[in-house]
Amino acid sequence: MSRADRFLNACKNLPVDCTPIWIMRQAGRYLPEYRAVRAKLSFLELCKTPDAACEVTLQPLERFELDAAILFSDILVVPEAMGMELILEDKGPEFPHPITSRAEIEKLAIPDPERELAYVMEAIRRVRKNLGGRAPLIGFSGAPWTLAAYMIEGKTSRSFEKAKALLFGDEALAHTLLGKIADSVTAYLNAQLAAGAQAVQLFDSWAGCLAPEDYAKFGAPYLTRIIQGLKRDGQPVIVFGVETGELLGLLAKTGADVVGVDWRVPLPEARRRTGAQVSLQGNLDPTSLFLPGDLLDARARKVLADAKAAGGGHIFNLGHGIHQHTPPESVARLVDLVHRESARSA
Amino acid sequence: MSRADRFLNACKNLPVDCTPIWIMRQAGRYLPEYRAVRAKLSFLELCKTPDAACEVTLQPLERFELDAAILFSDILVVPEAMGMELILEDKGPEFPHPITSRAEIEKLAIPDPERELAYVMEAIRRVRKNLGGRAPLIGFSGAPWTLAAYMIEGKTSRSFEKAKALLFGDEALAHTLLGKIADSVTAYLNAQLAAGAQAVQLFDSWAGCLAPEDYAKFGAPYLTRIIQGLKRDGQPVIVFGVETGELLGLLAKTGADVVGVDWRVPLPEARRRTGAQVSLQGNLDPTSLFLPGDLLDARARKVLADAKAAGGGHIFNLGHGIHQHTPPESVARLVDLVHRESARSA
Repeated sequence: MSRADRFLNACKNLPVDCTPIWIMRQAGRYLPEYRAVRAKLSFLELCKTPDAACEVTLQPLERFELDAAILFSDILVVPEAMGMELILEDKGPEFPHPITSRAEIEKLAIPDPERELAYVMEAIRRVRKNLGGRAPLIGFSGAPWTLAAYMIEGKTSRSFEKAKALLFGDEALAHTLLGKIADSVTAYLNAQLAAGAQAVQLFDSWAGCLAPEDYAKFGAPYLTRIIQGLKRDGQPVIVFGVETGELLGLLAKTGADVVGVDWRVPLPEARRRTGAQVSLQGNLDPTSLFLPGDLLDARARKVLADAKAAGGGHIFNLGHGIHQHTPPESVARLVDLVHRESARSA
Repeated sequence: MSRADRFLNACKNLPVDCTPIWIMRQAGRYLPEYRAVRAKLSFLELCKTPDAACEVTLQPLERFELDAAILFSDILVVPEAMGMELILEDKGPEFPHPITSRAEIEKLAIPDPERELAYVMEAIRRVRKNLGGRAPLIGFSGAPWTLAAYMIEGKTSRSFEKAKALLFGDEALAHTLLGKIADSVTAYLNAQLAAGAQAVQLFDSWAGCLAPEDYAKFGAPYLTRIIQGLKRDGQPVIVFGVETGELLGLLAKTGADVVGVDWRVPLPEARRRTGAQVSLQGNLDPTSLFLPGDLLDARARKVLADAKAAGGGHIFNLGHGIHQHTPPESVARLVDLVHRESARSA
């Protein structure tokens, strides 16, 4: 079985020869070859330079037997394309003029992805050409609640009090903003699919700071709206957030093929909450990669055993993005172990 | 019914005239009278000056009809008393010499709370004298996992990769450190009870970054050990952390009387996970206090309705500490609404 089929089959709960694995933020700072590219280009320049974005997308696949590539980009390029000034520095992203009013929401554009985000589509085409069928390419976008939260807070937050105050305090305004973002994301992902993305992941990174009742109103319906608007030819959709234990049922009902699970919820329990219709992606604690090899192995085996107990399709991944200081050797060890152990027990 | 009985009865699931309410971090930066004291004293000086700590502890009770006072202090005074240099500035706490080895753990002392933490006991005695039975006083401590995480990371972290690497990577070392902290906390809380604390809360603030299997090993057993070591004359114990959805069952089995619940888990679901033997504390999203009055009311009523549906004792609180920029008028409105509505429906 090719690596491309392994990942795509697991997304659809079809037979696989072993469990596929990819790693969130696999193209990133823990790799010296990535840091070498970043020494020459800022983060945003890297996102906007298709050759360089293609190069770093492929870097982890040169090193590790990963079963999917994920495009190197950032979720915040969509709000930028909608008209917001974006600063992406190592200290964290910033919108220096965050949204505070309906007038500012009215001014936001729904970008034409082939124009304002053409650099992304160009990077996708180059990656596909260079990958040559070795592994499938995952495209992605931020989800509306998470993007709205960034656009209102202006930066990462722990509590999102401004975003919640604005959106919870004026639901009509909330739905105007979230709808506009959803339409932008739909067009953006359709362009990615047309350019060659073989799967797409919606990152609702901050989903978990909403209570289920609020996520049912301000989060999940916009995932559903986007997924319904996608022009797909079988390409799977993955939805992911952290601290989503109470939201897994809502995420499973969006129409996604795969629900990402963080390390807080054991996969059998996640399965009880999602039902049988979706595949599960996850969920090794990313800090496991800092442990001695035998302890890393034990934790990876536990995830595989949990996935088997949970039943249904499984894509191995971390429960969140890989940490900056992770030793690359641990990633090699993990990828190898997942393939070897899951082939044996299949 | 006196305010003292209302809170203490709710902790024990005994009859109450209406739902008691207090607010995590109620003595804090959202109050101008607190900021006035802080203009003269640093945070750590304030913790260590019993007169001033007593004054700020009582400030919110002068303004609002709260059903409990909570001592003004900080969870990190215990590691400091164990021998670690502590810097508490507005940018966040810091241990400039974090723990990296067994040798450093061996050097940590189990402090005599009447000596190294005498300022806390003195503050408790002054608060009790000044409260004069108006409301009960809650003492508190950080829990072992959370304190260990701070002591190893040196500061607040999002991922706690150093703490997890050290503790998961060497379980014998982990249990030495956590045991030493547990013994320090037990002595500390016993001194607080002897000095007059009428309830104690264990803050396991970072519990939620551990998977249930890890919390069952490195978190919950140390809460049990502390609670079993307390010399109580009926004073209830509350355990609290955020993102603890998957840990509520473990928290309920520690021997605590009350389990705090953050806003992510609706109280009826929390009740299913804790069982009937504990009271529940929570769980309004703290950002609700930024909403227009009628929307704040609706959210507070929902928590009361959820608590009724959940059954058993309920202490109203936020799901996490109150935010710095919260309008004090919203707190007054909330306290009033909780008392009025719960008395009506009782």
